[in-house]
Parts: sequence; structure tokens; C-alpha cells
Amino acid sequence: MIWDSRTPVTVIGLGAMGTALARAFIEAGHPTTVWNRTPDKAAPLVAEGAAHAPAVADAVAASPLVVACLTAFEDTRQALAPAGSTLAGRALVTLNSGTPSGARETAAWAAAHGARFLAGAVKNVPSAVGARDTLLYYSGDASVFDEHRATLEVLGGDTVLLGEEADLAALYESAVGATLLPALVGFFQGAAALQARGLPVSSMVGFSEAWLDMIKSLLPVYAREIDSGDYSDAASSVNLFLTARAHDEDLTRETNVDTTWALPLHDLVRRAADAGRGDQSIAALTEVLKRPRAA
Amino acid sequence: MIWDSRTPVTVIGLGAMGTALARAFIEAGHPTTVWNRTPDKAAPLVAEGAAHAPAVADAVAASPLVVACLTAFEDTRQALAPAGSTLAGRALVTLNSGTPSGARETAAWAAAHGARFLAGAVKNVPSAVGARDTLLYYSGDASVFDEHRATLEVLGGDTVLLGEEADLAALYESAVGATLLPALVGFFQGAAALQARGLPVSSMVGFSEAWLDMIKSLLPVYAREIDSGDYSDAASSVNLFLTARAHDEDLTRETNVDTTWALPLHDLVRRAADAGRGDQSIAALTEVLKRPRAA
Ligand SMILES: NC(=O)c1ccc[n+]([C@@H]2O[C@H](COP(=O)([O-])OP(=O)(O)OC[C@H]3O[C@@H](n4cnc5c(N)ncnc54)[C@H](OP(=O)(O)O)[C@@H]3O)[C@@H](O)[C@H]2O)c1
Ligand SMILES: NC(=O)c1ccc[n+]([C@@H]2O[C@H](COP(=O)([O-])OP(=O)(O)OC[C@H]3O[C@@H](n4cnc5c(N)ncnc54)[C@H](OP(=O)(O)O)[C@@H]3O)[C@@H](O)[C@H]2O)c1
Repeated sequence: MIWDSRTPVTVIGLGAMGTALARAFIEAGHPTTVWNRTPDKAAPLVAEGAAHAPAVADAVAASPLVVACLTAFEDTRQALAPAGSTLAGRALVTLNSGTPSGARETAAWAAAHGARFLAGAVKNVPSAVGARDTLLYYSGDASVFDEHRATLEVLGGDTVLLGEEADLAALYESAVGATLLPALVGFFQGAAALQARGLPVSSMVGFSEAWLDMIKSLLPVYAREIDSGDYSDAASSVNLFLTARAHDEDLTRETNVDTTWALPLHDLVRRAADAGRGDQSIAALTEVLKRPRAA
Repeated sequence: MIWDSRTPVTVIGLGAMGTALARAFIEAGHPTTVWNRTPDKAAPLVAEGAAHAPAVADAVAASPLVVACLTAFEDTRQALAPAGSTLAGRALVTLNSGTPSGARETAAWAAAHGARFLAGAVKNVPSAVGARDTLLYYSGDASVFDEHRATLEVLGGDTVLLGEEADLAALYESAVGATLLPALVGFFQGAAALQARGLPVSSMVGFSEAWLDMIKSLLPVYAREIDSGDYSDAASSVNLFLTARAHDEDLTRETNVDTTWALPLHDLVRRAADAGRGDQSIAALTEVLKRPRAA
């Protein structure tokens, strides 16, 4: 049977993301064992061919490669604790969002249990798992990445090892992910404003997509400015954003949409201008975000 | 001469954007007259073939189509005031960012001066002016759009009339533009975090671009949820964002980067969860942004 040659995989945590991960392994023909704290969530995957282990130690024992996708690193350690010595010699790969310190703690915890450890991040939504251009990046034990690379690529064609420090993926995850909630709330604010005028939100989607493409085109430029520390060649200056606050207030008067969440952003712009950076590129806000180190 | 057949255009305001607009008209062979409060800024454009009118009334008198790109609507009215009756019978097109109320006031002001009025927005940076996929949208007098469409398309191939209400472009501009500053500050926060670890910001650009593509792919989904008011099918729930605040605090401890600007965002998430929307789609934040109308 074709799947006989594929590495058996255990998936721990069957939330929206864990379920998508397990499904991708099953579809790719990997013998897949699943475990979830709330066991009901295993049923659809069992119907698709997964084995369900009611005890986490049995789930871990079933495969050389254990992929965990729980809410946070703490939950992962807590859920895996009963597996104890079963972890020894296995490869543990986490795919939850988390902090660099959480990744380091989990790396130490895995080492104490004799497991090799790779901490990764899925840079996409569950429905994108398995697609050719879906990005996942990892950091930690390179031997795990090398050995299981083909299996990990089942989850997304764009699979990258950032380095051997276990917390790098979490650091990039935090750094890259920091645009998500603010960009979404900006979109939701715009959506609420259109609705206040009786216009469908669908009518702005194409424009918003073009706008995100425009923002995308700025990132390499801003990265160069920030890496060089030279903000003097400003296509879009700090001063240009000084009017944004008044625009927001007008939008609130006009549509009754709450724009106060953006006040600290306007404050950053104001502080940059007050610090003499008004004519510099808006990327100079990066410097304003760096807090002085305590002496 | 080829440009004899092209509509003469006057560009009022030669900042970063106005200069790019004037340059596009010159390059396309339109007889182009320019005016700026600080006259020095006209010099490079004159070298490229523009006529410079030191008095704004003369600039307006030179062309049937007057394109103004100043900081705000108020500045536009103030700068054009000395042109007085010269405006009668001309088409005035504004391309500044601004508020819906500013657009309505300027429409009334233009009507009082006998000018036909179109309020537009350039949804891109100055260097993108003239490109085939650069988006500009307009609202107001459709006769101006129809008559001067080919000339306006010189500024960007994706040129759209939203409707005849003069404030629609400003409303869409506010709605669509609301993602810009928050997304950029998110990126700058990530950049500062990488620098604190001694990593180059350029190393995150590719990931950040992929991340913005991911966000882009969510917009049609969220628009449908918001238009229907049905937030029950949540691929990414409100609850999933509840941990973001602790992540930010950890990032600050780790890198000394200021993340407090995002506190009101975490607050919105918390309020949505407290209102029983925890299992709903994150797009349900749209409802939390709608302030109750005063009785
Ligand atoms: N969904 C996305 O769009 C997305 C995208 C990228 C990354 N991620 C990341 O992927 C991770 C999982 O996300 P998700 O969407 O799958 O979340 P989810 O649907 O809320 O599922 C959370 C999972 O974690 C389990 N869990 C949490 N705490 C636990 C504990 N202490 N002990 C045992 N099990 C525990 C839950 O078990 P129960 O079923 O028993 O509650 C459930 O299986 C998160 O870190 C998230 O940030 C998600
Ligand atoms: N740059 C961009 O990336 C970008 C992108 C999209 C939209 N926009 C919008 O385009 C508009 C112009 O932006 P910009 O980048 O060109 O700004 P800018 O470089 O700061 O130039 C501002 C222009 O407005 C003039 N001005 C301001 N107040 C005036 C007044 N009261 N009377 C006479 N002239 C006045 C200035 O004249 P002086 O030279 O005499 O000061 C200058 O020509 C803004 O609404 C902006 O939001 C810009």
C-alpha cells in the first residue's frame, strides 16, 4: 500500500488548525494518529482514515513525528505532560502561535524529555493548509527539519527553516504577524462606515485589495530605510499623516463609527513630528517604537 | 504637433503627489500649466515642458480642466479663492485626501463659482502615478468624468467613477485607507523587534508580503459576513485573538519595543468576547465599532 512508505504522524490538538493539519496528512497518505482533549473532535478525522488515541501517551507512541497545534506553548506542555518518557527519541513539532520565550521554554522542556524539537508557524488560515504557496516557517533542531522535510511540506509548499535557535520562528511570527489585527480593524472600521451610508461592504473589497497591494509594494522600501537608518528620502512623510486624526474624527461625526482605537497611532505620528522627524519617511516611526533601555 | 489635440490641463499644488500628476500630464503630451504657493517647486516641471503661472487666476484661466492636489480640501478652497470668477465653466478635479464633509463643502463652493466638480483620490504613492494598474476613483459630476476620462486615465489605468454624490470618493477613501497607518505601524513594530535581536528587517519582507496576501484573501470572506450580519462560521474566531495582548507584552519584555499602541485593539477583542461574540468570526468586531446613536 502506498502509504506504507510514508512517515506515520501524530497530530495533537484538533481545533480549526489542528484538524486542517491532520486532514492534510491523511490526504497525503500518511498513517495519521490524532488526539484532542475534547475527544469528540476526532470523529470526522477518524471517518477520513485517522486512528484516534484516547490517551495522549498512546498518540505520541504511535509515530516518530508528533505535530502539536494547541492554543499556546503552555497548553502544549500541559497536554503532553502525561506522555512523559514516551516522548524520548521522537521529533516534536509545534505549530501554535506563541512568544519567543514560550518557544525557549518548550525547547528546554522537550530536551528534558529527550525529544528533538522544532517550533514552527503556519502563516495562513486553516483552509490554506496543503496549498502550494502556503508559507510555514520553522526554527530549532535542523536534523528534524532535514529528516521530515517532505512530510512537513505536505502542510504547505513554502516551507522554510529560519535557523537553529528554537525561538526564531516565534520571533518572526510576532514580527510578521503584528500587522494582522490592526489591518483587520482598519478594514472593519471602513466596513462599518460604508454600512452607515447604506453601501454594501462588498463594494469596497476590490479597492481594499488594491490598497493592500500598494502597502505591500512599500515594505521593501521601508525595510531598506529602517536597515540603513536613513529616513531622509520620504515619498510619504510623517507630516503627511498628521491630518489622519482629524479625518478620523470627521468620519466618526459622519458615520458614528468608533475610531478611538487609532488614537495611539496618531499619537506616535505626533511624537515623531515633535522629535523633528516631520519631513522624514513614515518608516521613522520604527525609531519612536524603540523604548529606551532601563539603565 | 501631437499635443495640440490633447486637453490643456492645469495642476494646482506641486507637492510630492501634485508634481507626479503634472509630470504624467506633461509626459502624455498635454499642454500643462502649473501653480504652487511656494513657486520654486515649479522649476523642475518647467524644465520638462510645463508653463508656470505665478498667479493662481492665470493658472486656472489656462485650461478647461483644473486638477488640484493640496494637503486638504480647505487648503484647496483657500488657494483657489483668488481665482474667483475665472473658475466659471471649468472642470475642477481634486485629488487630495479628505473627509466626506470636506468634499461636500468643496462641491458647494465649486457650484457657487460656476465650476463643475469631481472629487477623486489617488489610491497609491506618487511614483505609481501613470502606471496601468494604479487605481484612482472619483465621485461627483459625471459629465466631467465622461468628458475628461481619457485625460484622467493618464494618471492611472484603473480609473473608476463611484457615483454622482461628490462625497463618495472621500467616504471610500476613508473606508479603504483606514488600514494604512495601522498596518504600517504593525510592520514597524515587527521591524524594531527584529533589530533588537540583531536581525535585518529585509529578512522579514518576503514573509510580510505573503502575510499581506493572506490578509487580502480574507477580505471577501469578511465582507460577506459583515454584509449578511452572520458571523457564526468562524475560521478565525474572536477568542483566537484574546491571547494577542499577552503576546505583545512578552514581545515588549523580549525586545523593549513599545506595543502599547495596540492596547485599544486588544480592548475591542475583549469587549467582543464579553458581549458573547467569542466564538464568532473576528469580523464581528465591525459591530463593536458601531457606536450607539444618541437618542
Ligand atoms: N485558525 C487560524 O486561522 C490560525 C492561523 C494561524 C495560526 N493559528 C494558530 O494555531 C493554534 C491553534 O489554533 P486553532 O485555530 O486550531 O484554535 P482552536 O480552534 O481554538 O483550537 C484550540 C485547540 O487547542 C486545544 N487546547 C487548548 N488548550 C489546551 C489544553 N490546556 N490542553 C489540551 N488541549 C488544549 C483545544 O482543545 P479542546 O478542543 O479540548 O478545547 C483545541 O484542540 C493557535 O496558536 C493559533 O494562533 C491559527
Ligand atoms: N504622497 C503620497 O504618498 C500620497 C498618496 C495618496 C494621496 N496623497 C494625498 O495627496 C495630497 C497631497 O499630498 P502630497 O504628498 O503632495 O503633500 P505635500 O508634498 O505635503 O504637498 C502639499 C502641497 O499642498 C500645498 N498646500 C498646502 N496647504 C496649502 C494652502 N493653504 N495654500 C496653498 N497651497 C497649500 C503645498 O504648497 P507649498 O509647497 O507651498 O507648501 C504643497 O504643494 C494629500 O491630500 C495627500 O493625502 C498623497
